[in-house]
Amino acid sequence: MTDPIERLTSIFETFPGIGPRQAGRFVQFLLRSSSSARREMSDALISLGGSVHRCEECMRFFADTGSICGICANPRRDPSVLAVVATDADLLALERSGNFRGEYFVLGGTISLASDNTSGLHIKELLSSIPRRIDAGLAEIILALPANPEGDATAIRVHEEIAATNDIKITTLGRGLSTGSELEYADPETLKNAFENRR
Amino acid sequence: MTDPIERLTSIFETFPGIGPRQAGRFVQFLLRSSSSARREMSDALISLGGSVHRCEECMRFFADTGSICGICANPRRDPSVLAVVATDADLLALERSGNFRGEYFVLGGTISLASDNTSGLHIKELLSSIPRRIDAGLAEIILALPANPEGDATAIRVHEEIAATNDIKITTLGRGLSTGSELEYADPETLKNAFENRR
Amino acid sequence: MTDPIERLTSIFETFPGIGPRQAGRFVQFLLRSSSSARREMSDALISLGGSVHRCEECMRFFADTGSICGICANPRRDPSVLAVVATDADLLALERSGNFRGEYFVLGGTISLASDNTSGLHIKELLSSIPRRIDAGLAEIILALPANPEGDATAIRVHEEIAATNDIKITTLGRGLSTGSELEYADPETLKNAFENRR
Amino acid sequence: MTDPIERLTSIFETFPGIGPRQAGRFVQFLLRSSSSARREMSDALISLGGSVHRCEECMRFFADTGSICGICANPRRDPSVLAVVATDADLLALERSGNFRGEYFVLGGTISLASDNTSGLHIKELLSSIPRRIDAGLAEIILALPANPEGDATAIRVHEEIAATNDIKITTLGRGLSTGSELEYADPETLKNAFENRR
Repeated sequence: MTDPIERLTSIFETFPGIGPRQAGRFVQFLLRSSSSARREMSDALISLGGSVHRCEECMRFFADTGSICGICANPRRDPSVLAVVATDADLLALERSGNFRGEYFVLGGTISLASDNTSGLHIKELLSSIPRRIDAGLAEIILALPANPEGDATAIRVHEEIAATNDIKITTLGRGLSTGSELEYADPETLKNAFENRR
Repeated sequence: MTDPIERLTSIFETFPGIGPRQAGRFVQFLLRSSSSARREMSDALISLGGSVHRCEECMRFFADTGSICGICANPRRDPSVLAVVATDADLLALERSGNFRGEYFVLGGTISLASDNTSGLHIKELLSSIPRRIDAGLAEIILALPANPEGDATAIRVHEEIAATNDIKITTLGRGLSTGSELEYADPETLKNAFENRR
Repeated sequence: MTDPIERLTSIFETFPGIGPRQAGRFVQFLLRSSSSARREMSDALISLGGSVHRCEECMRFFADTGSICGICANPRRDPSVLAVVATDADLLALERSGNFRGEYFVLGGTISLASDNTSGLHIKELLSSIPRRIDAGLAEIILALPANPEGDATAIRVHEEIAATNDIKITTLGRGLSTGSELEYADPETLKNAFENRR
Repeated sequence: MTDPIERLTSIFETFPGIGPRQAGRFVQFLLRSSSSARREMSDALISLGGSVHRCEECMRFFADTGSICGICANPRRDPSVLAVVATDADLLALERSGNFRGEYFVLGGTISLASDNTSGLHIKELLSSIPRRIDAGLAEIILALPANPEGDATAIRVHEEIAATNDIKITTLGRGLSTGSELEYADPETLKNAFENRR
């Protein structure tokens, strides 16, 4: 397959959530773009490999010189609280919401319930960083994981692993009605949490 | 319009969420039903008017003799806590979830933000019942209203009205991640609540 | 179950496309209606059984005195062309569209592909009416059936049955692009028909 | 903005139908891909500019040496019939369906109803090619345009322009029930076409 239209269509078909039809439309879009726009995209792709790497502190991908990302290097972040999140996307969502000024750690996913497998998760790296973080003032670890069975299983596991060797406060995000929820359509678990967490 | 097919179609078109097409399908379905099935439905409709009335305690509709519904008449409900809900449907959703054993009061809706209008809401009936409920042991009123702007405005108004003449604990349902929520897709308000209500 | 709220909710749950939640909402809607509105609906339901019956000509349900419906009794309909449709709803859709001034015959459904079963379909009644219709001027039978496998199987069967004993023109509705179709999303069968039926 | 993550995210946000969230997910997907996969995608992008160009005959984009695409260069295509389509995607849909063995011409879009603007459409190129195509045996031009107001307006305009200087048969695709259509849900225009085009 040397036809670049077909080649690029096949590549876009491997993108998350993209089928053959949208892949074809992306290629048509690129065909209609200027050659300088395609060149810029090509350069950006190559730069991903060159300048992007994992932050040694929070494990997220970032693009910059140095081994530590802009958030972890920021001296104004609050070292007393650490949010453990599943993915880079969750970290970025929390940053966008502007509600959290502490530090982050990206686990790299959640436990698969089928396999109970933690491989691929940076649990070891998290554990080894905790003594150093406690020396720097860490007082609370927030398990900011998704409110689903995988997230819950991950929270239980990470909680156990941290508590086995550290005596630190560990919390999970509050559960209850999310914005826009109507009681009539809420699931029993959410209603239970909403009652328990009333204030 | 004396054609009963058209007449019944027009009636179904006034039902919530039903357009002409589905109204017509309902009538076709009834045409194919047995005459005893139509008779049973007709009887049930008339019975609604005869035996169904508002509970004098919680204001919901119920069908039974007496002026008080089965929930309010149940001596095993906990009189120390009262959930103020917007609609009968919300009350039934809480009952189904099995998480609440206290008593209920149905406001009959929420404040419309456009008009800030409380007409149609049973706020007066709620207020007049509170002294009697306190005598019976009431210690907490939970404003179990929808997590949207109308629900919030209603909660603020009802809170003010109750607090003006009563010195009783008033709470609202917990806000945070609802079951299934992923941080990446959560709105900033929900994330803020989830952080504040962590535990 | 003597509670009319629950009884009526159960009845609405048997309606096509209606689940427990919407059934409950219908009942709440009726509870809030006036008793005269409920009485009117109850009367219309009973009238369905009393005054509604199948037209002896076209087999559709209608509500009126006499054995023949208003369309079949209309002397201005064109007796030279007969549209054979699957359901009353299809007949009404054609009437609403205003494109057809001939006569109708309602088969009562389509052949189920699993069983190839024609029971329940009024094929015998259709066949027995054809000589009389030809005497009245019938020159063309249009098989106005849905453009799906069941409709196609029904058209083939009805065509065979008519042609076995009658020498009359039998047509089917034109196939091709329906309004709003884009070629990119059209199925191969539709594109094939669109090319063959170009004009 | 020199961060390649942000840069690439911004580029994906310009893709048709892609918002910031999915753009971010694409970049995360690419970050997790191998560097050889990113290199291959980068190469394919650059090749688009190098080897892809418009076919001089049908105006679609193709990737190959020469000035004429594989379809137009195929001596077994039928030169007696030409399908005028709106987009490359429509051409590919017709090819996939396997129903058409003639030649193609891609207009490059449809007329915008707001502006009645034909700029950007290759109408001039189409017109100038017709005498040559007639010499090669062209006997019919099929306006294979979308069945919507823009497509209809374009068909009328193109028909006028062709007919002004050529005496050739011009057809449009058949309209009627598309596969899966049920009469009950069909629009009046489609029912009208289905009756007129019955056969």
